[in-house]
Amino acid sequence: MIDPKHIQTFQEIVGKGNVYSDKAHLIAYSYDATRTRFEPDAVVFPRSEEDVSRILVYCNHHGIVITPRGAGSGFTGGALPANGGITLAMERHMNKILEIDMENMVAVVQPGVVNMDLQKAAEELGLFYPPDPASEAYSTLGGNVSENAGGMRAAKYGITKDYVMALRAVRPNGDIIRAGKRTIKDVAGYNVAGILIASEGTLAVLTEITLKLIPKPKFTKAYMGIFPSVEDAMNAVFKSLASGANPVAMEFLDSLVVQALKEKLGVELPESAGALLIGDVDGNVSQEVDFQLEILEASFRENGAQGFVIAEDGEARDKLWYARRNASPSITIFGSKKLNEDISVPRSLLPEALKRIYAIGEKYGFSVPCFGHAGDGNIHVNVMVDGSKPKELEDGHRAIEEIFELVVEMGGTLSGEHGIGTSKAPFMEIAFNPLELQLFREIKRAFDPNNILNPGKMGLPEHRDASRV
Amino acid sequence: MIDPKHIQTFQEIVGKGNVYSDKAHLIAYSYDATRTRFEPDAVVFPRSEEDVSRILVYCNHHGIVITPRGAGSGFTGGALPANGGITLAMERHMNKILEIDMENMVAVVQPGVVNMDLQKAAEELGLFYPPDPASEAYSTLGGNVSENAGGMRAAKYGITKDYVMALRAVRPNGDIIRAGKRTIKDVAGYNVAGILIASEGTLAVLTEITLKLIPKPKFTKAYMGIFPSVEDAMNAVFKSLASGANPVAMEFLDSLVVQALKEKLGVELPESAGALLIGDVDGNVSQEVDFQLEILEASFRENGAQGFVIAEDGEARDKLWYARRNASPSITIFGSKKLNEDISVPRSLLPEALKRIYAIGEKYGFSVPCFGHAGDGNIHVNVMVDGSKPKELEDGHRAIEEIFELVVEMGGTLSGEHGIGTSKAPFMEIAFNPLELQLFREIKRAFDPNNILNPGKMGLPEHRDASRV
Repeated sequence: MIDPKHIQTFQEIVGKGNVYSDKAHLIAYSYDATRTRFEPDAVVFPRSEEDVSRILVYCNHHGIVITPRGAGSGFTGGALPANGGITLAMERHMNKILEIDMENMVAVVQPGVVNMDLQKAAEELGLFYPPDPASEAYSTLGGNVSENAGGMRAAKYGITKDYVMALRAVRPNGDIIRAGKRTIKDVAGYNVAGILIASEGTLAVLTEITLKLIPKPKFTKAYMGIFPSVEDAMNAVFKSLASGANPVAMEFLDSLVVQALKEKLGVELPESAGALLIGDVDGNVSQEVDFQLEILEASFRENGAQGFVIAEDGEARDKLWYARRNASPSITIFGSKKLNEDISVPRSLLPEALKRIYAIGEKYGFSVPCFGHAGDGNIHVNVMVDGSKPKELEDGHRAIEEIFELVVEMGGTLSGEHGIGTSKAPFMEIAFNPLELQLFREIKRAFDPNNILNPGKMGLPEHRDASRV
Repeated sequence: MIDPKHIQTFQEIVGKGNVYSDKAHLIAYSYDATRTRFEPDAVVFPRSEEDVSRILVYCNHHGIVITPRGAGSGFTGGALPANGGITLAMERHMNKILEIDMENMVAVVQPGVVNMDLQKAAEELGLFYPPDPASEAYSTLGGNVSENAGGMRAAKYGITKDYVMALRAVRPNGDIIRAGKRTIKDVAGYNVAGILIASEGTLAVLTEITLKLIPKPKFTKAYMGIFPSVEDAMNAVFKSLASGANPVAMEFLDSLVVQALKEKLGVELPESAGALLIGDVDGNVSQEVDFQLEILEASFRENGAQGFVIAEDGEARDKLWYARRNASPSITIFGSKKLNEDISVPRSLLPEALKRIYAIGEKYGFSVPCFGHAGDGNIHVNVMVDGSKPKELEDGHRAIEEIFELVVEMGGTLSGEHGIGTSKAPFMEIAFNPLELQLFREIKRAFDPNNILNPGKMGLPEHRDASRV
């Protein structure tokens, strides 16, 4: 149990109603999308940057561990208090869109703002915030920045880091960091915003985010390429892009996902489809959209596509996208538990990578349906196991480890967009050598010498929380 | 004089012909575009990453200061050995384009490759490397990354950091840092590449750079908007962009520059021109180019433009761009020495910023012709003084300081693209508070605890080189 004197201090800082330490709340804040559990010792809802600073000063002094939390929708445990201590939850108060500056095309938000709320607010003004993680309806922008969230539109529009212009954050010693400016160019001082992005709340607590918005293109159409095999589809991905195609998204579904969509959801898909590529193209003029579709169709057909479907309007687009949107829920026909990883390799190596990933699955006797953001090289690999059989779970984790080794050997990364958190921390040694891991620890120490911010994540050292009695 | 035993060691590492310590070479390597001078004690040309690592290990052990150098074309002294020691010159050996990977649209280069050489190599393959600092014909990509170089195309295509996918670099202790991947998405570990960009060689020595290339748009036209006043032009900048225009470049020339172009170079420009906006628009289809020109013309005319010229082909484009290209050489009619700064403010504040910058010039009795990258908020401000009069020089520097204070007060930055180096170091305290400067020192210490890498830059601590006898 947390020492009541700490609770009292937190209440003095943020007000009585903004501190919880009862069991029900601790359980409620012990989850994220990983379905592992770590209970905090208290949940605190700061109302302002000043609250955050005062809490950090106090915790830094007393060795109390802090885990910042947005919506708790992460896939790798970034927002879970793996070392106990307090959860600093941004959802209740620090959830305002502070400004949309039309003249400079910039949004200033607090970290607890939900991604989709910003997308909608921008769209109402004719502007566009492109990063669209699958969790966009509930994940927060603070979480998006902390994990450098990606999404489907990354193929054309890039990822969260490409939109962060400036950050405000608080260091463990209470110092306010102002990093970046509301200007496109700024080269004064170290790029502190750059290192805070994707740092998973281990260096500082975000309190304000300034994001670039862009003009919303006026025309969009969807397309679907139908391929006899995964290899053909994967070749078409990098060859069409190298031919000058610049689609908003280029999403991949493999033959197992196609099978699952048909069997479980009755989705009508061509008999012969061994793999699909689905996406959008957009432009300010309709001719740009047609130009993109022509390159895609020509390149897809050269690489074996048997069909190319264009969806002109809203309803037809929704129908094409229905298959992609239901990939994840459909594949449970292959196993009660999915071990889901989001690897990324250079696009030209996708055909080889997929072939070898399937071979690893076969070796262990698992189905490994794959889908995802092929246009940027980021594939969601799902090792399907029977969750009730410990041997299968164990083998499944061994298969995952082999997949990570393969991906790193091919010049890829452990995580394209989900982050490392706790769930991928054991694999950091596959991707980084001891000297690189040492550098990460030294960067961590420069920002957080007492290791109170989200310790034990990303392969960084654990820290025993000192708040308990 | 440098202790001969160090020279001998350097010769053992890189070979005899790759170490100079004679006066002629020390003078040759004491300059950059700032026209201030700092002589190194030796110039060493590493042949490989391994050479770099061995040199750093040795210098780190002996407290010898190292300044990495590309072409020495920087405007703020980043490549000058302000604290003596050895200059590590990349131009001779580490100047190869190692690979252009067409399939993944990625270039891998050594730091000594000249920007334009990569642009040309990419273009020959139908690809495009957009960052185009004014020094593109001679500045190196290592320097571009170290200063996060901008350029004219930043309005549409962003700056150097937007193209860096991965870096290899060597820490002072000799450790090789591999940061980033040849993938669009990569969120494993801290974004070390992010903090190395714009770090001016103070954290590690770059040895390999992986850059994103993009498809080259097929159609380009140039435009010129003719405005009665600077204020009208500045309003047109942010209002046209907020209306959805996305020009490749939007360059600004003020009335003094227009006057200088006419008087000194006989450039034919409209009688009434109080300010000009010049730029390119591009697209994959001609309709996109026309779409952009329509938005620009409508928005420019709404904001007072008296003329809008479109240049369809190469020769006409060259003619329009001639005025912009000759802005810098023409303005010497206002004074023998220009104190040239590259401030950046949020675009909507450009009208107000320019008005107040001219007022500062008037107060001191100086002409302050301004031109530059208005489309991204980055303006080159030139305080013109008589370099032979000490009082004018002193007043000129005082005017520059007032301009920096103004810009920072308006939410802008000391430097949009030139960096801080030695020449802007005295102004860091205007832009950053003591806690932020302290954080910079702590980041520096995490990478370079003995402070041997380019000390005394960016307001970071000096370090007395220990190589002299």
